[in-house]
Amino acid sequence: MRVLLTGGAGYIGTHTALVLLERGHEVLVLDDFSNSSREAVRRVEELAGAEIPVVEVELAAPNSAVAAALAGQDFDAAIHFAGLKAVGESVQQPIRYYRTNLDSTLNLLELLGDRGVDRLVFSSSATVYGDPQYLPQDEEHPVGQGLTNPYGWSKAMNEQIIRDAQAARPELAAVLLRYFNPVGAHPSGRIGEDPAGIPNNLMPFISQVAVGVRDRLSVFGDSYPTVDGTGVRDYIHVMDLAEGHVAALERIGAGVTAYNLGSGTGSSVLEVVRAFEEASGRPVPYEVVQPRAGDVAEVVANPEKANAELGWRTVRSLAEACRDSWAWQSANPQGYRTGGAAA
Amino acid sequence: MRVLLTGGAGYIGTHTALVLLERGHEVLVLDDFSNSSREAVRRVEELAGAEIPVVEVELAAPNSAVAAALAGQDFDAAIHFAGLKAVGESVQQPIRYYRTNLDSTLNLLELLGDRGVDRLVFSSSATVYGDPQYLPQDEEHPVGQGLTNPYGWSKAMNEQIIRDAQAARPELAAVLLRYFNPVGAHPSGRIGEDPAGIPNNLMPFISQVAVGVRDRLSVFGDSYPTVDGTGVRDYIHVMDLAEGHVAALERIGAGVTAYNLGSGTGSSVLEVVRAFEEASGRPVPYEVVQPRAGDVAEVVANPEKANAELGWRTVRSLAEACRDSWAWQSANPQGYRTGGAAA
Repeated sequence: MRVLLTGGAGYIGTHTALVLLERGHEVLVLDDFSNSSREAVRRVEELAGAEIPVVEVELAAPNSAVAAALAGQDFDAAIHFAGLKAVGESVQQPIRYYRTNLDSTLNLLELLGDRGVDRLVFSSSATVYGDPQYLPQDEEHPVGQGLTNPYGWSKAMNEQIIRDAQAARPELAAVLLRYFNPVGAHPSGRIGEDPAGIPNNLMPFISQVAVGVRDRLSVFGDSYPTVDGTGVRDYIHVMDLAEGHVAALERIGAGVTAYNLGSGTGSSVLEVVRAFEEASGRPVPYEVVQPRAGDVAEVVANPEKANAELGWRTVRSLAEACRDSWAWQSANPQGYRTGGAAA
Repeated sequence: MRVLLTGGAGYIGTHTALVLLERGHEVLVLDDFSNSSREAVRRVEELAGAEIPVVEVELAAPNSAVAAALAGQDFDAAIHFAGLKAVGESVQQPIRYYRTNLDSTLNLLELLGDRGVDRLVFSSSATVYGDPQYLPQDEEHPVGQGLTNPYGWSKAMNEQIIRDAQAARPELAAVLLRYFNPVGAHPSGRIGEDPAGIPNNLMPFISQVAVGVRDRLSVFGDSYPTVDGTGVRDYIHVMDLAEGHVAALERIGAGVTAYNLGSGTGSSVLEVVRAFEEASGRPVPYEVVQPRAGDVAEVVANPEKANAELGWRTVRSLAEACRDSWAWQSANPQGYRTGGAAA
């Protein structure tokens, strides 16, 4: 299969590209490099020993520009990663977030229709479940209730838009992958998560503290009703996540189906800190600060549906994720801006 | 106040423009005339004895085009009617519906921010409530659960987008007006509802049957648990609805507030048929056909919040709505395409 990866130069896109290439598929990366790097794609090429064609265009641009940029490029399926993803920024810049995340999906759906491409995997998020009404959350959990930020709403809206587009074009088969908390990196340390500015997510923040880029970690609250009072999340190794995309693409059925991609196991913030300290051999100083508005005590996936229907499950531990994140961060303390000095 | 009316040449836009002008406000109509007529604006000018500037542009076009079209036009507030509204068509053309209805709202919000315009009234719909969980529905009824078509989803999404845009720009004050079933026309018969093609709504269909444009009305099901087995809805005279917009605009508070605009009284399909026959003196033949998927037995507004906070209530009866619809339809059997022969 030749697979279009929108946002294919990003964190999850690059790891998925690599796994697809290793499985014998071809990939075509579409990215505007607004929050990603050509160097990331170059490194995937190096790891895979394959060339990756890149189309540089903003997917949310007027659709004629996107169609023009993709002229002459054929593909059999699309995995749609492209979008803005910083929760806090989405609260500050809601119009930009909605415009980018919704228009990119609408453009892609139109493009797939025009090209007769019938397979779509969408990068969704467990954030569409809002406050957990029960744990672990399965795919039947209510969606789109009590979400607290435009990023989360844009994911829920995109799921609905894809469902409605599929209803109007029944030959389209789509999978909605609801990610829990992606962490880790390719074990080579050559590709990994490279957030611009202050990381929004726990693991890149921890690894920047361990490598000395930042002083200390802020832990948002330690009096939640959890094992040690800090928030519990379901962390999933990005290589497991990437394999989940390939499984979804290869087993895609008719209609629209949602799958949780998570491990089914929760870890507290302090458990992640300790695992990272052990993997890196470096101390990770932290201070406990006020809880953040909208945060909940615990979010854990029920991944049984993906286990059963996609023949996929997570196989990598939190310790491995910490080891691989550290391999990436220590070799690339400034991410891809490090300039490829580490190899 | 000088008020921008997006979609101001449409059914509700024209009636609202007239009431605004009669109340001493100025209006500026923005419309692309894709589903409306310049003749409608001309007739509002004639009824009001005032000139209405018109900006012809597609609000969902790239925002630079919209900003350019509005260059040199000042306004103090906006009422946002523009959008596609045919439920069945939205199921067939979801991408077009989402693109038009979401991008137009995003563009308008951006424009209001750029201009420093702080008052917005949004044309929403009781359809955001989905299947009634209780009756009559007040504004606390859950929103966005179990909606059955992209039109309804686009209204619910736009409400959320407006809420998030307001949170990021606290000086913006916005009102979400959830319409029940608008019917009737200005009593002059000069302006009214002029649907393209087969009407989607009951009253224009009935009035086209009465005037002989169509053979008979299809009544979708007669075994609902209602007074006579046919579906019950809350019909609101369009002049009452227009006055609700003006009240909302004049009393707009801080933040975002939703109001139901409905009468609080339900009428069955057959009650509307009989009221129309009486008002018109014409027979309205009908046949009972299969219920439509997604239709519910009864939808009735609780309008107490608008009554109390906006100092507004419906004052026109269903009989008056039928009389005024008939005045419009009989004088303009082909709508505005009739060519202004009636006066």
